[in-house]
Amino acid sequence: MADSAVKRVAILSPGLIGGSIGLGLAARTPGLRLTCWARRAESSAAAVALGAAHQVASTPEQAVQGADAVYVCCPVGAVGDLLDRIAPHVGPECVVLDVAGVKAPVPDWSRRLVQGAFVGSHPMAGSERSGIEFARADLYQGATWVFTPLEGDAPWAVSRAVGLAEALGARPLICTVEEHDRWAAALSHLPHLLAYALAQVAQDRVPSAGAHMAGGSYRDGSRVAASSPAAWTEILMANRREAADACTAASVWLAEAAAALTQGDGAALAALLDAAHTGRLEVGPC
Amino acid sequence: MADSAVKRVAILSPGLIGGSIGLGLAARTPGLRLTCWARRAESSAAAVALGAAHQVASTPEQAVQGADAVYVCCPVGAVGDLLDRIAPHVGPECVVLDVAGVKAPVPDWSRRLVQGAFVGSHPMAGSERSGIEFARADLYQGATWVFTPLEGDAPWAVSRAVGLAEALGARPLICTVEEHDRWAAALSHLPHLLAYALAQVAQDRVPSAGAHMAGGSYRDGSRVAASSPAAWTEILMANRREAADACTAASVWLAEAAAALTQGDGAALAALLDAAHTGRLEVGPC
Repeated sequence: MADSAVKRVAILSPGLIGGSIGLGLAARTPGLRLTCWARRAESSAAAVALGAAHQVASTPEQAVQGADAVYVCCPVGAVGDLLDRIAPHVGPECVVLDVAGVKAPVPDWSRRLVQGAFVGSHPMAGSERSGIEFARADLYQGATWVFTPLEGDAPWAVSRAVGLAEALGARPLICTVEEHDRWAAALSHLPHLLAYALAQVAQDRVPSAGAHMAGGSYRDGSRVAASSPAAWTEILMANRREAADACTAASVWLAEAAAALTQGDGAALAALLDAAHTGRLEVGPC
Repeated sequence: MADSAVKRVAILSPGLIGGSIGLGLAARTPGLRLTCWARRAESSAAAVALGAAHQVASTPEQAVQGADAVYVCCPVGAVGDLLDRIAPHVGPECVVLDVAGVKAPVPDWSRRLVQGAFVGSHPMAGSERSGIEFARADLYQGATWVFTPLEGDAPWAVSRAVGLAEALGARPLICTVEEHDRWAAALSHLPHLLAYALAQVAQDRVPSAGAHMAGGSYRDGSRVAASSPAAWTEILMANRREAADACTAASVWLAEAAAALTQGDGAALAALLDAAHTGRLEVGPC
């Protein structure tokens, strides 16, 4: 649970992720003071109107002053610059977290702070929608929240970061930066690439009249192709070595399946499906 | 709606699909008499116990005697033999439907009947589970039910087949055998292949400790990899030319995405994602 030293939390760039952090903390930890800052004034106003923050700061520097915890929720490519801006204003006992889907930059981000402590984190929740209007107080209930502490990170900072996630109902998972990025490539980045691939192949082959033939497998398989291509280009490029590796492996698997089909080799196809089916990871219900 | 001439319906090999037909017709068309036959006596007994049939026939020949409509629900590879068995016993005013996921064999199946009329059909509902214990009276409510009538098929037979689907709450979609198989490859067979590919790549890269990192995109993307590899080998092999074509297209798309990632070419990746995203088919909610 959140430690009692946490009185003030700042949320920078609240969208679906940051807005849901604000809504969840407001609902679950009474007494906490939530300040937000967003590049667009309408977003800050929406955060307060929705109850995801109590007050608006006009600059990120102002937002983090006196904060005990800061969530940096901007896109991955903007985290470094935002950290540079707030670094001189972060107090010595403040923990700063990112929520980006790629953790390779964490050592660099960590070095940018001059006081306080940075902890890399990635809440495994969200949806194909973005924007604070989709934020939900229960978005993290039962979700996994990954933390990638570096050797030498202050134990109090990691503990505080984990405690806040637990206060939001999330289950913490601690791993290394490298593990996170390899696992995320297989479990999040590849499913998105496969969804975009499915959306492309289907639109090339099926006229709109035939779209009514789509059943649950197409809907589920293509769901996240509704995600923002710009946002996903950025996420994938930030983890491009691992994402390319997983993507190539899927491409090769599919080429093997296509070859078995073309050659009429049912035994080879069955062996591919059977191995994939039998060894699939146990992940429980959504 | 089902025409009033339909008094007796036979369901051969009731599993998830046939059992749900029986449950739905029993609930929605009082007065209809439902007879089932299954290769395994326990399945027939389960169909009656669940309310998916009123009586059990000890042979398929006996099941179809006096029937106004017959659903042949066995796996695609067994349809031809079963049709040969029942053909001498099907009455002149009886419609016989298959429910297989591939329609290329429909002209062959149609020729096997000596009386009555065969209509190829494919209800676009189901799940990764199989077996009559998962049958539901509302499985077809709002689902698309595809019919692939051949030139020269008797209008009364097509009309009766469509009417029964409407009685089950399904929306009929009429197309050719070739259209069905091409569309099904993109909208059903490819999503299954992608799910198996994802399940394989993920298990190769993520230990069970990391499986908690799986979020909605992995769960949705891999869901149908829980489907029976044997059943899906049979379905894919029955439509292998179209399935291979869609599978190859997806493999090529993923290889292009992997190349863009490897080369650090964000513009090329963005173009791929954007085209897939922008043109994706409108299919509505599940």
